[in-house]
Amino acid sequence: MNQLKLSSSAGRSSDQAISYLMQAAFEHPDCISLAAGFVDETTLPTQLVLESAQRVLTPDAQGRSALQYGTTPGVESLRSVFRGFLAQLEDNPAVNEIPLNRLMLSTGSQQMLCLLSQALFEPGDICLVAAPTYFVYLSVLNGVGASIVPVPTDENGIQPDGLDATLQTLADEGRRDRIKLVYAVSYYDNPAGISVSADRRKQLVRVVQNWSSAEHPLLLLEDAAYRELRYHGPVLPSLWSYDDTQETVILTQTFSKTFAPGLRVGFSVLPKALVKPVCDLKGNEDFGSARLSQHIVADALESGAYAKHVKQVIAGYTVKRDAMLAAADEFFGHIAEVSWIHPDGGLYVWMTLPSEISTGFDSPLFHYATESAQVIYVPGELCYPSSWDKRPRNQMRLSFGVESPENIRQGMRRLAEAVRHIVDSS
Amino acid sequence: MNQLKLSSSAGRSSDQAISYLMQAAFEHPDCISLAAGFVDETTLPTQLVLESAQRVLTPDAQGRSALQYGTTPGVESLRSVFRGFLAQLEDNPAVNEIPLNRLMLSTGSQQMLCLLSQALFEPGDICLVAAPTYFVYLSVLNGVGASIVPVPTDENGIQPDGLDATLQTLADEGRRDRIKLVYAVSYYDNPAGISVSADRRKQLVRVVQNWSSAEHPLLLLEDAAYRELRYHGPVLPSLWSYDDTQETVILTQTFSKTFAPGLRVGFSVLPKALVKPVCDLKGNEDFGSARLSQHIVADALESGAYAKHVKQVIAGYTVKRDAMLAAADEFFGHIAEVSWIHPDGGLYVWMTLPSEISTGFDSPLFHYATESAQVIYVPGELCYPSSWDKRPRNQMRLSFGVESPENIRQGMRRLAEAVRHIVDSS
Repeated sequence: MNQLKLSSSAGRSSDQAISYLMQAAFEHPDCISLAAGFVDETTLPTQLVLESAQRVLTPDAQGRSALQYGTTPGVESLRSVFRGFLAQLEDNPAVNEIPLNRLMLSTGSQQMLCLLSQALFEPGDICLVAAPTYFVYLSVLNGVGASIVPVPTDENGIQPDGLDATLQTLADEGRRDRIKLVYAVSYYDNPAGISVSADRRKQLVRVVQNWSSAEHPLLLLEDAAYRELRYHGPVLPSLWSYDDTQETVILTQTFSKTFAPGLRVGFSVLPKALVKPVCDLKGNEDFGSARLSQHIVADALESGAYAKHVKQVIAGYTVKRDAMLAAADEFFGHIAEVSWIHPDGGLYVWMTLPSEISTGFDSPLFHYATESAQVIYVPGELCYPSSWDKRPRNQMRLSFGVESPENIRQGMRRLAEAVRHIVDSS
Repeated sequence: MNQLKLSSSAGRSSDQAISYLMQAAFEHPDCISLAAGFVDETTLPTQLVLESAQRVLTPDAQGRSALQYGTTPGVESLRSVFRGFLAQLEDNPAVNEIPLNRLMLSTGSQQMLCLLSQALFEPGDICLVAAPTYFVYLSVLNGVGASIVPVPTDENGIQPDGLDATLQTLADEGRRDRIKLVYAVSYYDNPAGISVSADRRKQLVRVVQNWSSAEHPLLLLEDAAYRELRYHGPVLPSLWSYDDTQETVILTQTFSKTFAPGLRVGFSVLPKALVKPVCDLKGNEDFGSARLSQHIVADALESGAYAKHVKQVIAGYTVKRDAMLAAADEFFGHIAEVSWIHPDGGLYVWMTLPSEISTGFDSPLFHYATESAQVIYVPGELCYPSSWDKRPRNQMRLSFGVESPENIRQGMRRLAEAVRHIVDSS
């Protein structure tokens, strides 16, 4: 069996950073985890899920249907509830007029990221991404053999001018016909906690639309996973809301961050041209995600339980974000050349160390942190395409999702100790 | 957007027979469905699922963990329960010694069929299948660009000698290095209701093992979806149980047929060489299927509720199988050259019409059945590789899963009327 020849897709999907991280966490069970992207376990709504399950699983035909096969994109009555939820979020009743076949339910939003990529990319096709960006999506892109091009990004998100210039450079290189997609985590992104700022949103969509043509359509994938986890700052309209053609922006959202990842419910709105191809791929894969989970989320949306719950979740994460930022001030404030972003939402604080301090799996810092200081973080370099030789090596993604405020402070203290140790010994 | 260039994978995944069938069913709502592979809705265990959910969702840390992210293959404690269930089915306590990392949970067993195919096949690689075989898997194989080769099959399943001869022919053609997999629905198969007979099981595994080499491993995928739906005949050991090396046979099972497809819970046992590649692909796709569903099934297994429920399900389907076979005798018994298989389990009766009567979507019979007689079936030709020009065109898959015994009789009466109409007018 050692000679088992795998597909090229399987070959490209190996060596996932997430596997290494999970292994590292497993081998160091006493570490405080500032790495895990899990949600705060104390927020998980066992009682609400049970109450919804009780309503959904009435012992009549309707209750039984929640346990039957559905349809590949999710049954229409459920998609209608998710569309109504989106109309509320968008504060736009016209969203309720979108044809239901444009909405698709998936196993978390992750499955949609993967299906879209399978539908769009041939090896060598190009995806443009913020720098840094969501590292699991980089793994998906590697899996389909996409060529990943970073776009200039700052604390206001992807720079529209920078995107335009990057597209121009690719076009000048004769590669325009290979560019398929721009990927953006639009709210409080993973990993940097950055949102695309209000003034850039429309611009960003316009740049993509300007480069899109009948011959070479260009799409923008808006990953709005953290949209509802807003602790501060304005309610931002989605990138999707600026797509008057409804042909450019794909919007994906999930209930994993605000409600329960163990249900694996995400939904997306697709441009018309992608509906059938994505549905066909999903049909081969599972003919529909877990329907009971979808019924439970839909019930919580309709009963109002979800909206109340999200308020509590936000209140809890606000405390934890504040705990992490306070600890950053307290323990890192006096270390030279260390800076971090203050996120208005999401689950992450993105920290930059002095340029000579590497943070990667093989770095002295990562070893000291996990072995001696007993704290684990996500090395920032994972959040850039590995093919990009200019990627920064001195950053860290710090999550305040899983640990308690006390542990967050303790974890930050340990991490600062590790950084000081490496700074002092280098 | 009309010019949107899709991946070759998306191109190969279009035009799914299942989409056409669902559309046909949707457009003819008054039809009795002998087509749908859905399970009997009256068997769906709303009360049992709710009771399990109540136990699983205790408001403590353990209950909350059911709503948290798990791990990609499913959390170990759950996989341990599924392994124990398999040990019982296999009547072999040694199964409990299999390393847990060899077990993987998926979104139904369908997802595993898809992941395995993504892991193994490059376009042009060969999969051997029974003729007829499960048509959705043919669609998965088309999606990965596999070359599908039918193997001689009779009422005792795939012929081991026929498999050996087919492999020899491919080898003689210089194609040995492209052969990756033999696929078999081993119990009461979809579509023909056929099981691989007791005497053939070991032979089949031996043929595959004999053709497997270090340089060119050959795998056997055992799809045991209908294993537990046994109404008559002996308890058959799995093909997997004959694989002493544990490197040849991949076993997949599902709880969709016996419990609740809306939970989407399947499990598989993989040869060691496939564990990491399949897990990596699944990591990109969803980092784990719906965990709450897995907890619910595991609880039902442990509480004994599942075992009791399966007995009731079997009793119900036995009545429906008998209703379909009795109606076949009553309404088709006097039509010349019509024959059908008497299944010992599963959900399907496979019927062969006179050779000149086509059953496909474009046939007069399909049109008359859906438009006039108001009954729908699955054309048998869908269950053979479309590239095989010798495939029979005069067969039908008739399901007794969804409809009541009364409707099954009525549906068979209508179908016989349609067949007579076509026979008389041809």
